Amino acid sequence: MNLSQILQLQLRPGIIDLGWGHPDLTRLPVASIQAASTAALERYGGAMLTYGIDHGVEPLRHALTAWIAQHEPRAPQDGEIMLSAGNSQALALIVSLLAQPGDVVLVENPTYHLALRILRDAPVELVPVPCDESGLDVAALDDIVTVLHAQQRRIAFLYTIPTFQNPTGATLSAARRQQLLEVVQRTSLRIVEDDVYRELWYDAPPLPSLWSTFPDGSVIRLGSLAKSLAPGLRLGYITADAATIARLAGCGLLDSGGGIAHFQSLLVAELFARGDYARIVADYRVLYGRRRDALHQALLPLQQHGFTWHYPAGGYFLWMRLPAQRQLAESLALIQAQEVDALPSTLFCQMPTGYSALRFAFSLYDEAQLTEAGQRIVHALRP
Amino acid sequence: MNLSQILQLQLRPGIIDLGWGHPDLTRLPVASIQAASTAALERYGGAMLTYGIDHGVEPLRHALTAWIAQHEPRAPQDGEIMLSAGNSQALALIVSLLAQPGDVVLVENPTYHLALRILRDAPVELVPVPCDESGLDVAALDDIVTVLHAQQRRIAFLYTIPTFQNPTGATLSAARRQQLLEVVQRTSLRIVEDDVYRELWYDAPPLPSLWSTFPDGSVIRLGSLAKSLAPGLRLGYITADAATIARLAGCGLLDSGGGIAHFQSLLVAELFARGDYARIVADYRVLYGRRRDALHQALLPLQQHGFTWHYPAGGYFLWMRLPAQRQLAESLALIQAQEVDALPSTLFCQMPTGYSALRFAFSLYDEAQLTEAGQRIVHALRP
Repeated sequence: MNLSQILQLQLRPGIIDLGWGHPDLTRLPVASIQAASTAALERYGGAMLTYGIDHGVEPLRHALTAWIAQHEPRAPQDGEIMLSAGNSQALALIVSLLAQPGDVVLVENPTYHLALRILRDAPVELVPVPCDESGLDVAALDDIVTVLHAQQRRIAFLYTIPTFQNPTGATLSAARRQQLLEVVQRTSLRIVEDDVYRELWYDAPPLPSLWSTFPDGSVIRLGSLAKSLAPGLRLGYITADAATIARLAGCGLLDSGGGIAHFQSLLVAELFARGDYARIVADYRVLYGRRRDALHQALLPLQQHGFTWHYPAGGYFLWMRLPAQRQLAESLALIQAQEVDALPSTLFCQMPTGYSALRFAFSLYDEAQLTEAGQRIVHALRP
Repeated sequence: MNLSQILQLQLRPGIIDLGWGHPDLTRLPVASIQAASTAALERYGGAMLTYGIDHGVEPLRHALTAWIAQHEPRAPQDGEIMLSAGNSQALALIVSLLAQPGDVVLVENPTYHLALRILRDAPVELVPVPCDESGLDVAALDDIVTVLHAQQRRIAFLYTIPTFQNPTGATLSAARRQQLLEVVQRTSLRIVEDDVYRELWYDAPPLPSLWSTFPDGSVIRLGSLAKSLAPGLRLGYITADAATIARLAGCGLLDSGGGIAHFQSLLVAELFARGDYARIVADYRVLYGRRRDALHQALLPLQQHGFTWHYPAGGYFLWMRLPAQRQLAESLALIQAQEVDALPSTLFCQMPTGYSALRFAFSLYDEAQLTEAGQRIVHALRP
């Protein structure tokens, strides 16, 4: 089996590549999926193999609603949740249906580089908004919205990852959330909240989603099973106001295709019914939390030399800022010379940030490898 | 289990609804899928659950390439085929990436009504082209292209279903294909060929796809496993020139999502490896061919009263034209009064066709039910 012709992941021998924000292949829940697949095909038979309902199958919508009810201050009503084929598909669908050609989409700077690629495939203009270790800079956002409105520009939405952001790992602070709420109420700004890392908290549960605390109709929340279960299933969900869900679930693609991700939706409904989901998520929290610590500990000596990072409370990433005098390309080359790799901050930015950084993913490798990688990075970058 | 909250299919008690172009739920290959799922998870393990390669997994691309090589005059090279999440997803992706706002998309009149919905969700203008029992009216197409080019309009592509069309069941004749080739060569018209019914031939294999016989770069062929295997898997493929495949497979959505339909791609690769696909397709040909005959036979008495149809050589549909003096809405009401249902021609048309018709799907019900439905229709419509 030639994995390089099956997987996106392309590993080079000997190199510890912390550029990949992928889960550990060897720790994905194969046995649970196997059992759920068998049970679901027994239970649903041909109903698993034909055209599904547009909002997505009720057993999984109900299971996700119950999960949200347990963990957030608000659960979606029927008609306020639909299934997606993951957050990438959800974002592509939303920009195609809710943005008009020429609209502005606001994005965090830095933000998830491949969301930028999805948005750039649409006929919209991306306008960056600064963010820092407390998340989105809401005062800057407010100014940008004011300027754009004065220019008569239509803003389709703000795309934000407020919880365990990619690439920074930062979570939008409670104070900033309050500020953002005020901007939303004053300007009617629409938010697309990418909530993909919510379940991967390592110390304490994160703040509730913007969707669950903001006024009805202001936030479209993209939930995903990619990080909490398995990305290969291509499965997620959207919670939003009923009118938005009706527009999205009522589109031609879902009508023609019979919903989206029908087969795997029933498979995962069975996995929830068997009670496996909570255990899998809990295992991931332990697994990836320890990996975060291994990388953080190994890198610590660099903090004496002006390298800084926010200790990530969840997600996959450690975002290490370089001291002002260090060049990004040169620093990357130095760690590559030690057979470690990472992604440079430029990849995630629409405009200069005033600093350079490297994104290290601690998800793919085990603790020993992360410790080794961290030591090599320290060796490469220590003055 | 409440199927109405799982499936798109919504059946009303006592009514034989020939409106649904869906496969028979009870004849989908549950056992094959079960075996393939188990075997694929054993073979691929975690590789089935993580991010996939952008073009789609090699084992399935190779299996499909071998199948095409057996059945068509041309097989795609590496780089000329990619996997899709079915033809709806493929069409939505193509219109979003290859059409610019304001472009024209040419569509057959009549055509698949839900493809119209997908295209209407994009910022393009749909221009209908007449078609008849020999398929697309290529002379009319030629005129329309000439006029549009004189108006400086950009035509993104022609969307056509040349083989066992939905709703008419017609196949573009060899003579018309030659004419179309000439138009393509002269005008550089781009074609998106929806080839979803290719495997469902009942008398003889169909003409090769346009993709396999037209100049490289002129045709994007959308192949699907929805009709030949199971729609719920949401799986298909695209064959086109390497530059087009590179643009489609290189888009942000597939980069961010790790390909599309990764899990079910490896499942179906295993189904091919086990040799099940050819047998399933052969079974469908017998099953649905007999159903076509049952409906056709039962409706035959109407041919004495001016109702006409092209005996469908493949696909799911019988397209019955009404005599000129019969009103469409009234005729539909008459058969509904007999507890049969169908879809009216207006649903498939962007402009008047000069005739009215009803689309009957013979895929969902067994022969006895189709005979019963046909008899009720005859009873309802006979003068």
